[in-house]
Amino acid sequence: MSYSTDPRAARSREAMLAAARQLLAREGPGSVTHQRVAQQAGVGRATVYRHWPRSEQLMLDAMGGADLPLFKDPEVPIRAWLRRQLRQMADELAIPAVAAMSLTLAQSAMWDPELAHRQDESVRTIVERIHAAIQSAVASGELETDAGPSDLAVMLVGPIVYRTTMQRDKVSDDLVARLVDSIGSWHS
Amino acid sequence: MSYSTDPRAARSREAMLAAARQLLAREGPGSVTHQRVAQQAGVGRATVYRHWPRSEQLMLDAMGGADLPLFKDPEVPIRAWLRRQLRQMADELAIPAVAAMSLTLAQSAMWDPELAHRQDESVRTIVERIHAAIQSAVASGELETDAGPSDLAVMLVGPIVYRTTMQRDKVSDDLVARLVDSIGSWHS
Repeated sequence: MSYSTDPRAARSREAMLAAARQLLAREGPGSVTHQRVAQQAGVGRATVYRHWPRSEQLMLDAMGGADLPLFKDPEVPIRAWLRRQLRQMADELAIPAVAAMSLTLAQSAMWDPELAHRQDESVRTIVERIHAAIQSAVASGELETDAGPSDLAVMLVGPIVYRTTMQRDKVSDDLVARLVDSIGSWHS
Repeated sequence: MSYSTDPRAARSREAMLAAARQLLAREGPGSVTHQRVAQQAGVGRATVYRHWPRSEQLMLDAMGGADLPLFKDPEVPIRAWLRRQLRQMADELAIPAVAAMSLTLAQSAMWDPELAHRQDESVRTIVERIHAAIQSAVASGELETDAGPSDLAVMLVGPIVYRTTMQRDKVSDDLVARLVDSIGSWHS
């Protein structure tokens, strides 16, 4: 990563980050490649490589200001919506660069307070969104559960992250359905 | 890590690795510190630091030949035994060096085929041990479940790894109990 003080380089860095965030928000982490970011930002591919030799680093910097779509705007029935969201999360984490980015962020957060803050924010966002969705399912009578929001989130997300990053293996639709069903009694 | 061809250095490296493996097997990953390994191997602490500047690297090398005690030798009732094993796993992963080691191994496995092999072995061992325990619980009528062994293992282990490494947060006894209960119907 280059932190040049040349104003033109700084502008082009910002343009590339903005492009990466747009791609991230619209098409998910798999779209944040050197080529797509270069096209979108109107710079050469070599410029993107010069700033971020590896795409995980670019994604990491872009994520700081991105509003990720995952688990946003719950839809009724929540049970089916949760399955779709977890399916999407699993598909994104099946892309090696995305899995590597998650591990890099988690690992760097152990030493670097700024990255720890970023990691905590991103984890908190997911927990809060899942919680909001589950609360609405409980309120509407779709779900009965006595687990706390944070535990529910790790029961849904933890196995998917473990399977994709630690086992480097696929998540079946059956596992996704089983995870959703494991958090309580669904009436949908 | 030093890979000296000096036979004396190689012997002392082997002695340190053997010491680390004994500590790992007897007292768990938290015991694999520079100081304990130096004592156990009868070398100076500086020697351990020279070979492995960070304790995760030492643990990583030691794990290659260690027979980890986790999830070994299931005891009846399996439900209570699983809770104890998961509690122990969570307590080990609560040690920052252990969490960092898990993330380091998983991340390095994405690029390095030798580490990928090591990571796969360690994951397969856990899955097989959990599977064996669950099979015996099903055979004895203690548990009814229709999930496959690999899915059951990630449902138990995934949330604990996620909570400790990605959220850098504690695992409550309540979460441990909830995970064990989520994998099927227990009659114990």
